[in-house]
Amino acid sequence: MFESAEIGHAIDKDTYDAEVPALREALLEAQYELKQQARFPVIVLINGIEGAGKGETVKLLNEWMDPRLIEVRTFDQQTDEELAHPPAWRYWRQLPAKGKMGVFFGNWYSQMIQGRVSGRFKDAVLDQAINGAERLEQMLCDEGALIFKFWFHLSKQQMKARLKALKDDPLHSWRISPLDWQQSRTYDRFVRFGERVLRRTSREYAPWHVIEGVDPHYRSLAVGKILLEGLQAALKTPIEPLHQSIAPLGESLDQRSLLDSLDLSQHLSKDEYNEQLIAEQARLAMLFRDKRMRGHALVAVFEGNDAAGKGGAIRRVAAALDPRQYNIVPIAAPTQDELAQPYLWRFWRQIPARGKFTIFDRSWYGRVLVERVEGFCSQADWMRAYGEINDYEEQLHDAGVVVVKFWLSIDKKTQLERFEAREKIPFKRFKITEDDWRNREKWGLYRDAVGDMVDRTSTEIAPWTLIEANDKRFARVKVLRTLCDALEAAFKKDKKSK
Amino acid sequence: MFESAEIGHAIDKDTYDAEVPALREALLEAQYELKQQARFPVIVLINGIEGAGKGETVKLLNEWMDPRLIEVRTFDQQTDEELAHPPAWRYWRQLPAKGKMGVFFGNWYSQMIQGRVSGRFKDAVLDQAINGAERLEQMLCDEGALIFKFWFHLSKQQMKARLKALKDDPLHSWRISPLDWQQSRTYDRFVRFGERVLRRTSREYAPWHVIEGVDPHYRSLAVGKILLEGLQAALKTPIEPLHQSIAPLGESLDQRSLLDSLDLSQHLSKDEYNEQLIAEQARLAMLFRDKRMRGHALVAVFEGNDAAGKGGAIRRVAAALDPRQYNIVPIAAPTQDELAQPYLWRFWRQIPARGKFTIFDRSWYGRVLVERVEGFCSQADWMRAYGEINDYEEQLHDAGVVVVKFWLSIDKKTQLERFEAREKIPFKRFKITEDDWRNREKWGLYRDAVGDMVDRTSTEIAPWTLIEANDKRFARVKVLRTLCDALEAAFKKDKKSK
Repeated sequence: MFESAEIGHAIDKDTYDAEVPALREALLEAQYELKQQARFPVIVLINGIEGAGKGETVKLLNEWMDPRLIEVRTFDQQTDEELAHPPAWRYWRQLPAKGKMGVFFGNWYSQMIQGRVSGRFKDAVLDQAINGAERLEQMLCDEGALIFKFWFHLSKQQMKARLKALKDDPLHSWRISPLDWQQSRTYDRFVRFGERVLRRTSREYAPWHVIEGVDPHYRSLAVGKILLEGLQAALKTPIEPLHQSIAPLGESLDQRSLLDSLDLSQHLSKDEYNEQLIAEQARLAMLFRDKRMRGHALVAVFEGNDAAGKGGAIRRVAAALDPRQYNIVPIAAPTQDELAQPYLWRFWRQIPARGKFTIFDRSWYGRVLVERVEGFCSQADWMRAYGEINDYEEQLHDAGVVVVKFWLSIDKKTQLERFEAREKIPFKRFKITEDDWRNREKWGLYRDAVGDMVDRTSTEIAPWTLIEANDKRFARVKVLRTLCDALEAAFKKDKKSK
Repeated sequence: MFESAEIGHAIDKDTYDAEVPALREALLEAQYELKQQARFPVIVLINGIEGAGKGETVKLLNEWMDPRLIEVRTFDQQTDEELAHPPAWRYWRQLPAKGKMGVFFGNWYSQMIQGRVSGRFKDAVLDQAINGAERLEQMLCDEGALIFKFWFHLSKQQMKARLKALKDDPLHSWRISPLDWQQSRTYDRFVRFGERVLRRTSREYAPWHVIEGVDPHYRSLAVGKILLEGLQAALKTPIEPLHQSIAPLGESLDQRSLLDSLDLSQHLSKDEYNEQLIAEQARLAMLFRDKRMRGHALVAVFEGNDAAGKGGAIRRVAAALDPRQYNIVPIAAPTQDELAQPYLWRFWRQIPARGKFTIFDRSWYGRVLVERVEGFCSQADWMRAYGEINDYEEQLHDAGVVVVKFWLSIDKKTQLERFEAREKIPFKRFKITEDDWRNREKWGLYRDAVGDMVDRTSTEIAPWTLIEANDKRFARVKVLRTLCDALEAAFKKDKKSK
């Protein structure tokens, strides 16, 4: 894999000087076109051997191109805010918006290779990390991102020669970091694991480019041309995504659906309700004061029919807690800034830090519910969303975040009664809009979408709980009980894994 | 100041139960109206004696109102990201957007009173903090925010009784924090300094409300009604801000202006340029590697006539550094999210952490330049912006941020030549727009605006540097030299202050 990057590639100064002006101009042109179109972001990953010209090349790109449109990000030591969130959070918060270019040093590849080289973990964990990176990049590319992955290479001999030259040069010896010396000792391992990573993560949508780093002219021109060609090609692709032909989801053969099988007649009397509600609220409050909560965070997703009582259920959950412990995020139409990012970005931003609780009033499932039903995204978009969402929730789960998802279900008759009641009560009239009536027309489409959603995203690590919500009391108690059960189960698991 | 909050205010249960339903309904109504209008944010500051019902009241408000529209924020221990920024940064990043309500625990008042009570600083520093809070609140209110400040009070006797009751109650004894015990010992100091703070920060636009905390019914109704009345009044005020009559800035008596007095004929030969540019770039690179840089951050503001060469100057500065050290922020029209916040919010977000460098390509000075000239904001808005900006820069300066501001000045003839040249070069054609030609028509208005800007915001801590930019070489070298001089001066001051 690195053979052809150890043969001493070089470009003479005259050729270099002759080629650079046109390349620069074309790069600038492409960059401004990228900004004008603002159709996709560009992500450049910088990896490879220390001393092979990573920093110098990025510096040069900033000189050639317009640095105002390039965001260079380094991920070294995690801040304490980053440590309190799932590992990918730090990358999500730094993603370039559409029309911009982000250059990532110390990215996910650096972290996984460094971890394996130092022996902090074995191949199995490395392979998990590789798999995570693939899924992340696949998703970014599906969302339109253009990803360049550069591996700057030096042979062992070249690396040692370079370190020695720097060391003997009083003007530049400060450039040698402890990492450099360390890597000169671990070169073989670094290259071995690097090879494994490159082999398994070079994909048609985001291939690796291995650049021999010895000769500055060669590496600069090579990187510049790869960027230019990739940019130009992407800028020329048609604005509309190709409509991939996707098999439709099969319809129910016997017309029976999951939602229809719910027993919506379940209910609680006022006394039962008062007693059980207080008991479950007290239980939730106690669980939040449990020391083990410090190792977890809680995410609750509320979806459901319009007027199913999401707001009321959320209020009963909130009432159990100190307002400093939770954060309620109502999800409405995305803002400009949110539209300039991948779909899941706005939800990654809201992930609670350890010890905290975020309640989503509607959520990322909008993609496979309203966006599917209303045609706000293509079928390809919402079809792949199931997988992306499962990946997302798995990352949350792996970082100790307990994910609980509710679908509050009512029947059509109950909805009508509630709509009509809302229109009569002054302070509830805000709660009913034209949209609600329109959505009601699409009852069947939503029922199918919910069925598919539950089938495809109810997982062991983040199961859906269907809430029979014709009776508000029954629904509220079941929501609270489910949250408590989920936290308790997570705490119990902690014990086992110790 | 606290006398009437120690007389044992109480409301009997029957009165309370009779009043709450209507209050709740009206609060909800006001809250939804606030959301619909999305015209201003509401900030609720919670302060006072421990145990006086702060947390309980906020919890109750979340039950009465729609908690999805309330963001409760606690500011206790600073994270390391917060520690690397000016103190106010943590509040700015949590400001509620227009249409939302933010409840701040552990806010600026808690910090300053705690610091004074513990003896970490004396009255002079407390008074500085008081002054800073006043300026912040004045600015927020000028931007439309509605601020409520609640002080929950208990007499010393009441506080001790409450602690004792909690201690003896096995179900609630966990509620007593170490802070509570500490405060029972420092009650007198706490109340004394609290009184000083309240006295000096109760203003017509954001008065304090002292609430006696002993009786839950009383304190809940009192807070609820104050909120309701304040909200209702604010929701009824006309959408257009009252046009305050503001005296126009005096015009120059002798038609001479600062910009006209620049000697734009200054220039460098190619050889001089190459030599001086490299020397200054090396100097800047060395300064960034200096250990003392870790205690500072650098902010450079680039403003100037269109085509004055801001981009080229920025590129020469960037070329001196590793791209990981700086961040270039181009300022364009504000996004939705930015419009939902006070004017300076988008710039606060971009303040560099210690050791880092942010280059603003256009900046907060847009308020007193393009927004003034184009009438995008009222005269009152841009007139008060001078003071707000001076406050902002002072906060940066106090936190070790070195602020360097450039106005790149060219004459009208030079601008015309550059516009025409740009239209001919393919990769520069993006740089010239209809706006540029239109702005050129307003040369005189911009000249006046720049004169006023420099007169009112060139301060010892953040002076303007006017750059004679008819000759690009001269301009670039002067920019670099000014940056180096500013960093050196800051480093020297460090030494003296030690």
